[in-house]
Amino acid sequence: MKDITIGIDIGGTNTVFGFIDSNGKSWGEGTIPTQTRERFEDYLKDLFKAIDQTIRNSKEDLRVIGVGIGAPNGNYRTGTIDNAANLRWKGNLDLAKLIGEELKVPVKVTNDANAAALGERIFGGAKDMSDFMVITLGTGLGSGIVVNGDLLYGHDGFAGEVGHIIVRPGGRECGCGRRGCLETYVSATGVKRTAYKMLAKHLGESSLRDVPFNGLTAKMVADAANKGDLLAIEIFAYTGRMLGEALANVASVTSPKAIFFFGGLAKAGDLLFDPVREAMEKNILFLYKDKISLQASELGDDAAVLGASALIWNDKA
Amino acid sequence: MKDITIGIDIGGTNTVFGFIDSNGKSWGEGTIPTQTRERFEDYLKDLFKAIDQTIRNSKEDLRVIGVGIGAPNGNYRTGTIDNAANLRWKGNLDLAKLIGEELKVPVKVTNDANAAALGERIFGGAKDMSDFMVITLGTGLGSGIVVNGDLLYGHDGFAGEVGHIIVRPGGRECGCGRRGCLETYVSATGVKRTAYKMLAKHLGESSLRDVPFNGLTAKMVADAANKGDLLAIEIFAYTGRMLGEALANVASVTSPKAIFFFGGLAKAGDLLFDPVREAMEKNILFLYKDKISLQASELGDDAAVLGASALIWNDKA
Repeated sequence: MKDITIGIDIGGTNTVFGFIDSNGKSWGEGTIPTQTRERFEDYLKDLFKAIDQTIRNSKEDLRVIGVGIGAPNGNYRTGTIDNAANLRWKGNLDLAKLIGEELKVPVKVTNDANAAALGERIFGGAKDMSDFMVITLGTGLGSGIVVNGDLLYGHDGFAGEVGHIIVRPGGRECGCGRRGCLETYVSATGVKRTAYKMLAKHLGESSLRDVPFNGLTAKMVADAANKGDLLAIEIFAYTGRMLGEALANVASVTSPKAIFFFGGLAKAGDLLFDPVREAMEKNILFLYKDKISLQASELGDDAAVLGASALIWNDKA
Repeated sequence: MKDITIGIDIGGTNTVFGFIDSNGKSWGEGTIPTQTRERFEDYLKDLFKAIDQTIRNSKEDLRVIGVGIGAPNGNYRTGTIDNAANLRWKGNLDLAKLIGEELKVPVKVTNDANAAALGERIFGGAKDMSDFMVITLGTGLGSGIVVNGDLLYGHDGFAGEVGHIIVRPGGRECGCGRRGCLETYVSATGVKRTAYKMLAKHLGESSLRDVPFNGLTAKMVADAANKGDLLAIEIFAYTGRMLGEALANVASVTSPKAIFFFGGLAKAGDLLFDPVREAMEKNILFLYKDKISLQASELGDDAAVLGASALIWNDKA
């Protein structure tokens, strides 16, 4: 009999699940489409069926001891998904309750950045750390903050929205309805916006001048920078500076031992992290100087499922 | 036999202690000067003597179960005072160790803002709250942040320096060596600096034009505002706006249920809090809108000693 937790990552397109043991080893996994069903309950039925089949197909005798879920707007305090913009089902979805009733085990829900942070703590580079932060750099900027060894949820379950710190009052329009949020500068989308700003501001030649706005990706900017395109390098320097300044401020609140980076944009590596480090150290309060390590996440592509399963393993640690 | 904890507040001028029971009732108190002794050990001997005499003088049979201390640069993780600018003894002072050896009970140390936050949780307005923040508004701006029911110390014991968030890059010079920190705008000193900025900027008459810079106090500005002095009112509006914008950002990190204000400048009341509330709600992410209550601390003038003693009572709660 092998004790496993089910880690579930609910994305806008697919829902991926995996059976994860206490060492982070996977004993089976599966994927179903997230949004083909009109009713949320029917989607869950599909999910239960896929999980059940995967358990039956396993050669090992698996015992499920809990379910951890990373979901957009997943609320740890209530176990619900609250008004997720990129899911078809509106209102507050009783996710933890419905899954718990079916599978008869503890169910925990949080958002993907929080799950990534717990995954880093249980299975990744933060194993010995009780105070650190994970920044996910994708279309937006997400954050999961661990303090005193546990996730910082806040009174309502929605703490850790570092991407929505206003870093430039009156600055770039943000999807949240305000202006100047960090993620409008530091994210794949932010890099794209900065690219166009720089193309307008400077005269220098750049391969990016041949790409229409809707065709441009952060990866194209990174590739150009790695080939020595000066404008592309300046775009990443600017992005890194904005992030470094913001992290210096966040450090004054939470004083983390390390900050881990995860997600598509994080693959730019030192192109991004060198200016982040420089700006953070330049702007940080003397108390925190040279204390915070910036590093890439040690979790691989299955980080979302590992992180979700860590919601349960963290309680057993 | 009455179980009490000793709460000690180490200030630049005086050290105040009190014997506090689990209900926050004081069973004796005393004061000694902080900095008359050249050697830190001699200061502690004076303190032990004063404590011992106060215990002997008590009619009640008191049993000391622990000592909590609020001190400048008090480090919870190490129990030391680290390089406090306003104390004569330099380096790291082994406060918890030395007191523990003498009194043979657990000793905990933190800074005064953290102590105030725990005091609010154990004896004040935050009794049922596990996620809130206390802002102390004096010469500077201090903060104590409680999350998941415990103080946010950070990996090094120095988390919660909200006064040193940079809110205006390149802005006012701060005692920390950087520029644009929140406390250069929001503190008694910040109010004074804003007063002079406004006197320079505007032409309107104001009673403040008759006061030299070194003679001006935040209280004089508050008094003028309460008498209808338009310039003084604008000074508080500006100060409140700066604080409200900063708190909207901090909310994105910690999502507190309430923010309590404490200290001399907090006595300005709605003159300050109305613009804080307005600016915070105007700038906050929709997730947190209309959720955070701003209120005055419910602790009185003995807050520092109560808060220090709460370091011990919090562990028993």
